Amino acid sequence: MTMTTPTAATTTAVILAAGLGTRMKSSLPKCLHAIAARPMLGHLLTAAQQVFDDIVVVTGPEMEAVAKAAAPYPTVVQQDRLGTGHAALQAAPHFGEGDVAILYADNPLITAETLARLKAARAGNGLALLAMRPAEPGKYGRVITDAAGDVTRIVEWADATEAERAVGLCNAGVFCAGGPDLARWLAAVRNDNAKVEYYLTDVVALAVAEGKRVVAVEADPAELRGVNSRAELAEAEATLQSRLRLAAMDGGVTLTAPETVFFSADTVIEPDVIVGPHVVFGPGVTVKSGTEILAFSHLEGCVVGEGARIGPYARLRPGTVVGQAAHVGNFVELKATTLGDGAKANHLAYIGDASVGAASNIGAGTITCNYDGNLKHRTTIGAGSFVGSNSTLVAPLTLGDGSFIAAGSTITKDVEADALAFGRAKQAERRGGGALIRSTWTKKKTGG
Amino acid sequence: MTMTTPTAATTTAVILAAGLGTRMKSSLPKCLHAIAARPMLGHLLTAAQQVFDDIVVVTGPEMEAVAKAAAPYPTVVQQDRLGTGHAALQAAPHFGEGDVAILYADNPLITAETLARLKAARAGNGLALLAMRPAEPGKYGRVITDAAGDVTRIVEWADATEAERAVGLCNAGVFCAGGPDLARWLAAVRNDNAKVEYYLTDVVALAVAEGKRVVAVEADPAELRGVNSRAELAEAEATLQSRLRLAAMDGGVTLTAPETVFFSADTVIEPDVIVGPHVVFGPGVTVKSGTEILAFSHLEGCVVGEGARIGPYARLRPGTVVGQAAHVGNFVELKATTLGDGAKANHLAYIGDASVGAASNIGAGTITCNYDGNLKHRTTIGAGSFVGSNSTLVAPLTLGDGSFIAAGSTITKDVEADALAFGRAKQAERRGGGALIRSTWTKKKTGG
Amino acid sequence: MTMTTPTAATTTAVILAAGLGTRMKSSLPKCLHAIAARPMLGHLLTAAQQVFDDIVVVTGPEMEAVAKAAAPYPTVVQQDRLGTGHAALQAAPHFGEGDVAILYADNPLITAETLARLKAARAGNGLALLAMRPAEPGKYGRVITDAAGDVTRIVEWADATEAERAVGLCNAGVFCAGGPDLARWLAAVRNDNAKVEYYLTDVVALAVAEGKRVVAVEADPAELRGVNSRAELAEAEATLQSRLRLAAMDGGVTLTAPETVFFSADTVIEPDVIVGPHVVFGPGVTVKSGTEILAFSHLEGCVVGEGARIGPYARLRPGTVVGQAAHVGNFVELKATTLGDGAKANHLAYIGDASVGAASNIGAGTITCNYDGNLKHRTTIGAGSFVGSNSTLVAPLTLGDGSFIAAGSTITKDVEADALAFGRAKQAERRGGGALIRSTWTKKKTGG
Repeated sequence: MTMTTPTAATTTAVILAAGLGTRMKSSLPKCLHAIAARPMLGHLLTAAQQVFDDIVVVTGPEMEAVAKAAAPYPTVVQQDRLGTGHAALQAAPHFGEGDVAILYADNPLITAETLARLKAARAGNGLALLAMRPAEPGKYGRVITDAAGDVTRIVEWADATEAERAVGLCNAGVFCAGGPDLARWLAAVRNDNAKVEYYLTDVVALAVAEGKRVVAVEADPAELRGVNSRAELAEAEATLQSRLRLAAMDGGVTLTAPETVFFSADTVIEPDVIVGPHVVFGPGVTVKSGTEILAFSHLEGCVVGEGARIGPYARLRPGTVVGQAAHVGNFVELKATTLGDGAKANHLAYIGDASVGAASNIGAGTITCNYDGNLKHRTTIGAGSFVGSNSTLVAPLTLGDGSFIAAGSTITKDVEADALAFGRAKQAERRGGGALIRSTWTKKKTGG
Repeated sequence: MTMTTPTAATTTAVILAAGLGTRMKSSLPKCLHAIAARPMLGHLLTAAQQVFDDIVVVTGPEMEAVAKAAAPYPTVVQQDRLGTGHAALQAAPHFGEGDVAILYADNPLITAETLARLKAARAGNGLALLAMRPAEPGKYGRVITDAAGDVTRIVEWADATEAERAVGLCNAGVFCAGGPDLARWLAAVRNDNAKVEYYLTDVVALAVAEGKRVVAVEADPAELRGVNSRAELAEAEATLQSRLRLAAMDGGVTLTAPETVFFSADTVIEPDVIVGPHVVFGPGVTVKSGTEILAFSHLEGCVVGEGARIGPYARLRPGTVVGQAAHVGNFVELKATTLGDGAKANHLAYIGDASVGAASNIGAGTITCNYDGNLKHRTTIGAGSFVGSNSTLVAPLTLGDGSFIAAGSTITKDVEADALAFGRAKQAERRGGGALIRSTWTKKKTGG
Repeated sequence: MTMTTPTAATTTAVILAAGLGTRMKSSLPKCLHAIAARPMLGHLLTAAQQVFDDIVVVTGPEMEAVAKAAAPYPTVVQQDRLGTGHAALQAAPHFGEGDVAILYADNPLITAETLARLKAARAGNGLALLAMRPAEPGKYGRVITDAAGDVTRIVEWADATEAERAVGLCNAGVFCAGGPDLARWLAAVRNDNAKVEYYLTDVVALAVAEGKRVVAVEADPAELRGVNSRAELAEAEATLQSRLRLAAMDGGVTLTAPETVFFSADTVIEPDVIVGPHVVFGPGVTVKSGTEILAFSHLEGCVVGEGARIGPYARLRPGTVVGQAAHVGNFVELKATTLGDGAKANHLAYIGDASVGAASNIGAGTITCNYDGNLKHRTTIGAGSFVGSNSTLVAPLTLGDGSFIAAGSTITKDVEADALAFGRAKQAERRGGGALIRSTWTKKKTGG
């Protein structure tokens, strides 16, 4: 992507994102609802910036959150929702001399490849549009072509004859034309129709009237499905997850139960990683080769080194780096923590804002107290250390290389290298004390 | 629902629940197997009580558990299993003058809407029955109608001609008629057939013979599918979960991966709640608007306030109330606990039989010792408190507002407001003690 | 299975396992990729040993791991990959006088029943082959039969006429013949074809040329699907999981959400067990009747007694035995541990290398310190004991019957029966200490 002021060479994607999404029943603007942990608008930005020089997002009034999500790309506000043609027209001041494509923020599955085909088809023609052949064409507008295959017009379903309705090629609403042409056509669109709206589709007739050649580029209907409800959002999520799962498997990753694994759009997994059932990848995860991610793990914002073993029930939170051949086990949470090569935290531990040296062993139940109620503090554990089970490590704290912490200790002061530290009470015993307690019980023992 | 003694106006649903369910291979009566965390019989009761004044359940011998589940509705026992007609006849003493419908406890997916349509169709006619057009009609009895669309008879598949078998309309076995009529017809049903059974279906012929008009009400075959095996139970569960998921999404709830979320029949979720993948809602859950339920959470018998964040891996057990904007994090279990507005329990904690004041922070690894081996006791934590990590709170216990508990403490006595309490040993260190221990090792260090 | 030296009676299965599996993009030989927690080769061995006396596995060079997985069965190495006929020929020295079948290690779903049908069909005929009618026959070789139904030849798709391509019966590549016949035919196969390979399929023509009768045995295409990529591995896993789930449900097990439950090939579950959503069974699990396995549980190498309650979020690791009516609850990990009848470990505990007596209660947050950095040690807890919450039990350790451990204790020495033991510091309090700390805070309180 290059961010330039419009020049003769500049191509522009316009993303229409003013939709209210009433059927979502949400206080969040529709285009900010996420799939694969990325707002729908973000998917459009990602695809468009691979193909176009610049992007302009058209929002509605009081949608500052959308403008923020669109940044650094500029937004224009469509003050009155008078139709898609009117929305696109608001972006016209940003058109350059190069190609301009009109896209929709609620079509999050469109791929860069399809956009590239659309732009390529525009070259040498007046207008290129995306068309599709859905299994159930329903009330989509139909794309009418001549003997040569050129588009002669789009006919809305309501206006179509039976013969026209039998046409399987449907209009997806995505257009690409030269900037000046498109600006001129958008300005010429009229709202003399039943809904008194300015329809973007009318540019086709305007192009044809000018004798321009209009070409249709067929695309997979699955890419072009719109999201107007939570159910459609879930369908889009499912389609995208299928893509991501197949891509992972094609890349040499074993997914034991792909249908139970959820990726983010930016997940990176190397070959010969094995992912068990029921695993969730939040944004920003990289997993290196030979690592096993066991069931019920949840990773987010982390890098996992080669040959590591993660889970089951491992929770890796942002800022975590797990070293080669390190182990993170059951009910262990790491946050903003570096776990050294070969280090292990296998059971019921919370390690936050910490660094753990290579080959150290963090006992079951170990807790780093990284928060004092006011500020967060760091814990540094040296290499080859042994932190006994159920230890409480009160940060800020440094445990030297090779240090030993006795099980059950609360450690508040730094421990030097190779030292043994403990902080626990002496054991005492009262003979018969258990029986005595039991003798006082007034009711039958019940479950815990 | 109104529980009245039968009067001229009283309508009655009869639920046949005597089935042994041999193919379930279970010691539990078939109708008590659950879908969406409610016994099948319970689904019938819930649907029927929305449409009928009274309900009678027909059970078999030694099925007291069914009678208990049916309460407060009365049950009658069919001592010998002589067929559906015989089963329904047992309930005749409970029929009023109003409509009586015969339903099946192993058809748990039938909706109140369908029952209401059935009852409405009965008005002014002799008998109304539910019919369906399954994709594969198979060996269902076929509903034969005349030119006017009235039912003339039900023909069993074994007795049907080729032409009759080609009829797509099938008998679902659910009937509705006036109480006195139905009682008379049931008494007239004979068992002079191959299986020597009294078939409920015979009431159709008896009604027609009396010149009564019989009408068929078409319903979705998915509602009328019977459950006779564990596999069919799982299918019914899947159908019901689909309904519940769609209803949640239609209501403005985001389900990232609806196919991995399991609701109970009574789950209440407000709009703009986001539910991640792999979440289970047990019975009795209400989640208010703006809350996020992250992956691998399991909620049961709890109310979650607005804007809260639950999970991942949060376990909310019955009696829990989570306040507005409160956080319950990884591997945290709350039981019979009120967590105040803005309070946080983010990691590896068990808080049971407790109340936590607003804006308090419960450190990682905190455990309330609510059970002394004999009785359960309560823990009360004031507002704005800070409970340090790995603390052990021995109930009964009260921590005042603004109190501070040092990390790693065991607290057995009440702590006054704004006080600092600690209960942990002093840290000691032996220089070189770690190295000394390591020098005694007789074998190579192995994994934990 | 009987392991004998070849005799006149000895039947042999040859498993071709030399495939590199390039499309898997893996450093692991293809046949060692697992489905249902068992390598593909293992599935073939399991099926074949139920039907044949002996097994020989054909591997490629530098595939010692495969030989290891095949043990105790012998392997022969195909030094050069010259085709399936050549691969099978390498095993000829192991053929006895009895039947020999040629199978593929990347067809892991073939059942013993199908192999038995194949062997039975061979009896009295020259050659039996497995055929199938896939929904999309595509480029499979077609099985051409005569009027009597006998196979006259296999025609490869490339060489087939339109009429032959219209034949739905496809060659699955699995053959069974008498040992001496097969050895002779394999030696006679030539590589004078486009790919210069020795095709196993050519044995059909050789058998026919000798006037032998060749018969086709039809099998379910789902059994005969090959695995050549990670996506196909996932499909095979899904097919096998479906089989295992249906078998469990047919046996009287409730699977609330079968599609979210993952079994191992050797999982044993008795009737009237209820398994919630999202449960994973690793290898070596037996669950007895009346037990409930709640959501998000992960069991491996363990036996669970009757009427137990496991989960949610229970992690049972190898060597664990859970007694009758025992409870293992949220975020509890058991490893190599015997939990006595009626004993409970309900919350956030790690119990490893331990035995817990009947009716004992393990408090929330209890950790057994079984590893001292060098060796593992055992913890023995007597019957009727009460281990208070957040206790740290440092092994080797014995707690006598009826002993009581006070909450928050670290226990390093044995405790005698009926005694009360504690090892925790006295609680101290500084009035106003909490307020004092808060007064020093330099920034606004933020989230934990």
